[in-house]
Amino acid sequence: MDSVKYLLPESDIPSAWYNLVADLAEPLPPVLHPGTKQPIGPDDLAPLFPEALIEQEVSTERWIPIPEEVRDIYRQWRPSPLFRARRLEKALDTPARIYYKYEGVSPSGSHKPNTSVPQAYYNKQAGVKRLSTETGAGQWGSSLAFAGALFGIEVLVYMVKVSYNQKPYRRALMETYGARVVASPSEETEAGRAIIAKHPDSTGSLGIAISEAVEVAAKDPETKYALGSVLNHVLLHQTVIGLEAEKQMAMAGDYPDVIVGCTGGGSNFAGIAFPFLGRKLRGEAEKDFRIVAVEPAACPTLTRGKYAYDFGDTAHLTPLVKMHTLGSEFVPEGIHAGGLRYHGMAPLVSAVVSRGHVDPRAYHQLACFEAGVTFARTEGILPAPEATHAVKGAIDEALRCKEEGRSETILFNLCGHGHFDLQAYMDYHAGLLRDHEYSSEEVAMALAGLPSVG
Amino acid sequence: MDSVKYLLPESDIPSAWYNLVADLAEPLPPVLHPGTKQPIGPDDLAPLFPEALIEQEVSTERWIPIPEEVRDIYRQWRPSPLFRARRLEKALDTPARIYYKYEGVSPSGSHKPNTSVPQAYYNKQAGVKRLSTETGAGQWGSSLAFAGALFGIEVLVYMVKVSYNQKPYRRALMETYGARVVASPSEETEAGRAIIAKHPDSTGSLGIAISEAVEVAAKDPETKYALGSVLNHVLLHQTVIGLEAEKQMAMAGDYPDVIVGCTGGGSNFAGIAFPFLGRKLRGEAEKDFRIVAVEPAACPTLTRGKYAYDFGDTAHLTPLVKMHTLGSEFVPEGIHAGGLRYHGMAPLVSAVVSRGHVDPRAYHQLACFEAGVTFARTEGILPAPEATHAVKGAIDEALRCKEEGRSETILFNLCGHGHFDLQAYMDYHAGLLRDHEYSSEEVAMALAGLPSVG
Repeated sequence: MDSVKYLLPESDIPSAWYNLVADLAEPLPPVLHPGTKQPIGPDDLAPLFPEALIEQEVSTERWIPIPEEVRDIYRQWRPSPLFRARRLEKALDTPARIYYKYEGVSPSGSHKPNTSVPQAYYNKQAGVKRLSTETGAGQWGSSLAFAGALFGIEVLVYMVKVSYNQKPYRRALMETYGARVVASPSEETEAGRAIIAKHPDSTGSLGIAISEAVEVAAKDPETKYALGSVLNHVLLHQTVIGLEAEKQMAMAGDYPDVIVGCTGGGSNFAGIAFPFLGRKLRGEAEKDFRIVAVEPAACPTLTRGKYAYDFGDTAHLTPLVKMHTLGSEFVPEGIHAGGLRYHGMAPLVSAVVSRGHVDPRAYHQLACFEAGVTFARTEGILPAPEATHAVKGAIDEALRCKEEGRSETILFNLCGHGHFDLQAYMDYHAGLLRDHEYSSEEVAMALAGLPSVG
Repeated sequence: MDSVKYLLPESDIPSAWYNLVADLAEPLPPVLHPGTKQPIGPDDLAPLFPEALIEQEVSTERWIPIPEEVRDIYRQWRPSPLFRARRLEKALDTPARIYYKYEGVSPSGSHKPNTSVPQAYYNKQAGVKRLSTETGAGQWGSSLAFAGALFGIEVLVYMVKVSYNQKPYRRALMETYGARVVASPSEETEAGRAIIAKHPDSTGSLGIAISEAVEVAAKDPETKYALGSVLNHVLLHQTVIGLEAEKQMAMAGDYPDVIVGCTGGGSNFAGIAFPFLGRKLRGEAEKDFRIVAVEPAACPTLTRGKYAYDFGDTAHLTPLVKMHTLGSEFVPEGIHAGGLRYHGMAPLVSAVVSRGHVDPRAYHQLACFEAGVTFARTEGILPAPEATHAVKGAIDEALRCKEEGRSETILFNLCGHGHFDLQAYMDYHAGLLRDHEYSSEEVAMALAGLPSVG
C-alpha cells in the first residue's frame, strides 16, 4: 500500500535540453530535398519554422539552454513526479523494482506541452501570427492549442477526419483553448482537394493532414508549421523527462537496468531514454542498462519496417529523411492508440535502433489494454492507450525478472492519462477490439513503394 | 506569463483532519430518526457505517489523526499545488491577487479521493467486503471505485439513470477500476422497484440512487454505505485542502480577503473554507476575511431553499437533518454541473451559512462556462463544470476589486478538471445550453412538502 513519489524542487527543472546528436559516434544521415534529393540547408526549412527552431533542428551542441519564459510555464506542472509502483510490484509478485515517470500531470494530460510551449514561444519571438499543425488522436493538437492560448498565437489544426468525427471531445478541448479545427482532408488546401477528388470518401490520415498543414504554412508568410514528434528539435524538448528522471532515480538511490518507452513518432520515448543513453555513449553511466522501444503490432515501424529514406507525408511535400518506415502510403489499422499510428519514426530514434542501442518490440492492443486495466487497479492512474504499450513492456520485464529470480530496476515513461480515451476502454470491456497482424506480403507491398534515393 | 506554483513537501501533508464542530459557538441541531423524529444515537448508524466513521461523524474533537496508511495514499497526489493565477489577473486587468488550490491532480481528477480513500480504509479495517454508493455526474463513483480497487473492497454504484445513459465514459472509468455500476432506479432494490412501478420512465435522481444504495447496505451485513458529501465525516476528510492552503498562502507571503468555493453537497467548499473559518472563530486569524459559497441558480439550495429538517433521499430511508433544502422531492433542472444538483446541503455548511459566517451566491450556468473558457485560455486548465462556479465567483470578486481600485487577495478552490465533461463544453460552444430560473411559486411548492418536525 506504500506508493512512493519522488518529487524534485522547481529549481531542478532542467535549464538546458539535452541533444543526443552531440554524443553519436556517426552523424545522422543528411535530410534530402524532395525534388533534387540533395542535402538541404537551413534555408530550405525557413518557410516552415522560425530560425531558432531550425538552429535546434541541425544543432550538434550537447546542451541547448531553455529560455526562462519557457521554464516559467513548465513550472505549472514540472518537475513531473516519478513514482515507485509498489502496488503493481506486489500484484505481479515480482522481485523487480518498477518506477514510472508520469507526464499526465500537464494541463493537456500528456507529455506534448513539453514541446508545444517552446515551439509557441520561439514562433512568438519571431513574430509569427499563426501556427498550422496536424493531429490524429488529438493529444498534440490540444497541447499546441494550449500553448497558442498562452502566447496569443492563432492555432489551426488539421484533424484526421475519422478522429474529427469520432472524437468530438478532443475537438471541444482544442476549441475551448481557442484553436480552429478542420477535418482533413479538407477543401481548404490543394493537397486536401486532390485527395478528395481521388477518394471522395477519404477518412484521412496523419500523412494527409501533415500535407495540408505544411502547405498552408508554406504559402502564408504569417503562418508557420508545428510538428508534435519526429523532428530533432521536438525530441530535444522532451528530454526534460529523462533529465528529471535521472535526478529522481538518484533520489530513490536506484538506477535502471531497463528503460521502457512507447514509440509512435518517437518523442516521449526519446524524452525518457536519450539523457540516459547519452551518458552511456559518453562512458559516464553508473552501470549498463537496456532500452526497450514498444510499438503497436498494428503499426510495426521499427520491428517490420525498413530503415530507408522516405517522405514524412502523403503528398510528398516534406523533405526525405532516413528513418524506419512502412512507406508513406501505408495506412495503419484503426487502433485506439492513435498517437502511435504513424508510418515513419523519428530519424534520431531510427538511428539508435539501427545502431543497436535500443531493442524494439511490438505488442498487440488487447494485451496492452489488459496491462492498462491492471495498472489502473493497482496504481490508480488510467493510462492513455499509447501509454499502455509502455506499461505492458514494463510488466513483461517484471515478469521476466520473476521467472529469472532477478531483482532488476525497471523505469518506464507513462506519457499520458487516458481520461480522454474512455471510448477505447469501453470498447475493450465490451469485447469489441481485435488484434491485427499484417501478412509478410502486405508489409512487402507497402515497402515496395519507397522512393529510390542515391 | 509568470504562473507561480506553491508546492509543499510531502511532510506537510496534514497529519490530522480539522473538525469545525469543535469551534462552533452553538452545537449542531441533532440528527433525528425518520420514524420517531427523536435524536438518533451512534447505534442507529451502525448498519450503514463502520464504527470509526460514526465516531468521526459525531465527534466534537478539533483534530482527528489521519492514519499513516491513508497519508501513504494521499502522497500519490498530495500536497496538491496552489497557484497564483497571474495570467488570469493580467487578462482581467485587476489589482487583485488570485490564488487557486488545484484538486484536479488526483487520479480521478477531483477532490473526492480525499474522502473515498479514508472511507475505504476504515471499512477495510472493519472487515467490510462491499461498499454501496450513489453517483450523479460520476466524480464520486469513480473516486470510490479507485479507493475500492486499492483496498480490495467491492464497489457497487447506483448511477442516476440519465447519467448512466448519457455519460458512458464515467461508467467505463468506474468499471475499469473494477466497480459494478447499476442504472438507478433499478429492479435490484425495493426502493427502485417502487419508483419504477410508479414512474416506469423515471430517469432517476440522486435522492433515488441514495435510497437504493442505503437499502442494500441496510439489508446486507457485509455491505456498508459510503457517501461522497453532506455528512460531517466527509467534510472533515476534505479539510486537507484548506490546511495545505493555509501553509501555501504563508509561503506566498499572503493571506486571503475572500475565500470562494462551489457548493453542491458542500464538501469541497468545506474543505477549503473550514480551516480558515475555524481560525477566525477561535480569534486566531491573521486578519478578517469573507467566505463566499457559490451554487447553481438552477439548484439554489442556499439562496432560495429553507433551513429546516429534511430527508437526504427520496424514499425517506435516511435520518432527518437540519439543512438548507429545496425539499427531498425536488428534481433540479438538468444542468451540466451534475455534482451540484442536490436538493439539500451539508448540515455543517448550512449551519455556518445560517449563522452568518458564509455569504451564499447563485450563478447561472452560461456565465459559469464563459468563466471556465476564460480560465482555460489564461491558466491552461479546463475546469469541471462544478468548478466553473468557483472560477466565476473569483472572477467577479476580482472585477469588483478593479472597480473599487482595491488590491485584495482572493483564494478559490478548483475542485476538479473538466476532462470528463467535454460534452458540456461542446454544448456550450454550440449554443445549446439555457439558463433556468425557478419561479417563486415553484420554489414555494417544493418547500411545502417539507416534513413537519417538533
